[in-house]
Amino acid sequence: MDSNLNNLKDYEFNFSEVIEYAKKHKVSIVGIQLPEGLRRMQNVLAERVKCELGCEVIISTEPCVGACDIADEEFLNLGADILLHFGHSKIPCLSKTSLPVFYIECRSNMDVENVVNDSLNKFVNGEKVGILTTVQHVHKVNEISNILSKGKLTPIVSKGDCRIAYPAQVLGCNFSTAREEIKNGADSFLFVGSGYFHPLGVAISTKRKVIVADPYSNEVKEIDGVNNEIVNKIMRQRFGAIAKAKDAKSFAILVGTKKGQSRLGCALELKRMIEKHSFQVFLYSVGRIEPEYLRYYNEDAIVSTLCPRVAIDDFSRFNKPILTPIELQILLEEKDWNEFAFDEII
Amino acid sequence: MDSNLNNLKDYEFNFSEVIEYAKKHKVSIVGIQLPEGLRRMQNVLAERVKCELGCEVIISTEPCVGACDIADEEFLNLGADILLHFGHSKIPCLSKTSLPVFYIECRSNMDVENVVNDSLNKFVNGEKVGILTTVQHVHKVNEISNILSKGKLTPIVSKGDCRIAYPAQVLGCNFSTAREEIKNGADSFLFVGSGYFHPLGVAISTKRKVIVADPYSNEVKEIDGVNNEIVNKIMRQRFGAIAKAKDAKSFAILVGTKKGQSRLGCALELKRMIEKHSFQVFLYSVGRIEPEYLRYYNEDAIVSTLCPRVAIDDFSRFNKPILTPIELQILLEEKDWNEFAFDEII
Repeated sequence: MDSNLNNLKDYEFNFSEVIEYAKKHKVSIVGIQLPEGLRRMQNVLAERVKCELGCEVIISTEPCVGACDIADEEFLNLGADILLHFGHSKIPCLSKTSLPVFYIECRSNMDVENVVNDSLNKFVNGEKVGILTTVQHVHKVNEISNILSKGKLTPIVSKGDCRIAYPAQVLGCNFSTAREEIKNGADSFLFVGSGYFHPLGVAISTKRKVIVADPYSNEVKEIDGVNNEIVNKIMRQRFGAIAKAKDAKSFAILVGTKKGQSRLGCALELKRMIEKHSFQVFLYSVGRIEPEYLRYYNEDAIVSTLCPRVAIDDFSRFNKPILTPIELQILLEEKDWNEFAFDEII
Repeated sequence: MDSNLNNLKDYEFNFSEVIEYAKKHKVSIVGIQLPEGLRRMQNVLAERVKCELGCEVIISTEPCVGACDIADEEFLNLGADILLHFGHSKIPCLSKTSLPVFYIECRSNMDVENVVNDSLNKFVNGEKVGILTTVQHVHKVNEISNILSKGKLTPIVSKGDCRIAYPAQVLGCNFSTAREEIKNGADSFLFVGSGYFHPLGVAISTKRKVIVADPYSNEVKEIDGVNNEIVNKIMRQRFGAIAKAKDAKSFAILVGTKKGQSRLGCALELKRMIEKHSFQVFLYSVGRIEPEYLRYYNEDAIVSTLCPRVAIDDFSRFNKPILTPIELQILLEEKDWNEFAFDEII
């Protein structure tokens, strides 16, 4: 096969399994789903898939936020034979799909050696360091372990719960790997990757130190789970949202229709909790959240059981306080303020 | 049952079939889907359904454009037992759904007598007048017929193709009833309802005179299918879009993922037509169309096989020309300019 298909700029894709499947089965229509970060490659990828598999290719235009957001049913209805889902690893406990889905992970070629070496002086000799990263870098975990060992640290690598595909991997909605690493002795964490959401979630969830080594910017940053500028900023925002919802007499609970974000059980539990406090509550199903769709809501506050990032990342797009399940529990005094954590789907 | 459930302000809803079903089956979770026009009643309706059926109710937040846009699969995945789809009549040829769907039509109580009487002088004695209306007023067709007969006109009432549920009914995507009425002798049409889209589509599609009797504004308007200000304005816009796409070297074809808007066969046919002319073409699947999702498209022009109204009503929201299938055929000179018509799903 065309080696260019595997290697597009800074990324590597593994197509071999798809080619093998296509050879065995008649594949005439293939769906493609990509996250925003890979959209600029969508036509190149579509063209290559078409040439390799000799099929019609349909690219999904809907925003795709993760492997929780699989367009299998849409593509089945469109008559596609298979779906290629780019850029995310499979969520093992969500493996049942309506048509064969191939997860074409996207591996970064970015060098991690220098930035991990630079991070060593943030730890003390002999410190047990839990390694954490995102799917783009999971193939570098052995290399990272070796650098830590050479730097007189003890690397800890664990695998989280059934939403996690690889050792050391964390998702925006799941920090179970970090908790597993603590069980296995980790004192602190090294997160290799970009963005603040994952390490921040880990820091708040575990209250341990998280060192961030970003191979894109070559920067090393420290996030202290208890006292840190970014943690404090987010905490102020979240506590502000809870305070703003304090006078709410009615609540809208959002239930996700995306396969991997659907938590009806949790929503019904929250509903009963709200009713117990004699407030009014309505349930709403939501695919992709758009603040404009909520303009007909009369409720005073919104509780989202969708992707945990909605309340945290998108809070400024809403004109009403939007809370996570844990935050509602704090509001209703069913939980204590010091039990605050990022919402997770576990 | 509570008579208020049936009668909310100016509308009537028929719940009897649902109540009967709920009594026979165990219904614990019920989904509700409404068009924008009924959103302001969503909480009242949800509360009433909950009281009547003794169940949990989940309201869908996604915009709903018609009975082509049934959220059956989303609600099945959410664990709902039935879906109540408000405000649209069933599309008979789309009756297969993943869970039981009840179409709670919404009948307007608006008086039509005066405005239909006012329209009589727009016709000449003995003229054969095809009656057309939307689902809100189909229960008034007999009354309208009688007024026309008394006014010395011959009313023609016909039923269109398999997308049409009631005699005299037209949809925004289907004017087959009008063509059927022409076959049955209609010289011209009386459209009872509001909005310009339906009568305009009929006028352009049939090139006959359409008289609009709007019971909301009590206004009577005439749309001449060949020479009329609104028709001319729309025609200029559409021909402008075709002209703007004249230099396109690449095309994006949009395929709908909504059950009743999905026309992959049509899309593939258009793709082959474009390829025959040696232009580049990519297929994209689209649920709800949002111009911002098209920002990654490199193509020069867009062809929509979704809801026919997208290209016509939303053209100003796109920074690229967006054409219907017929308009692409005109562009590629596969059809003549005078064959222009509103796109229909038939």
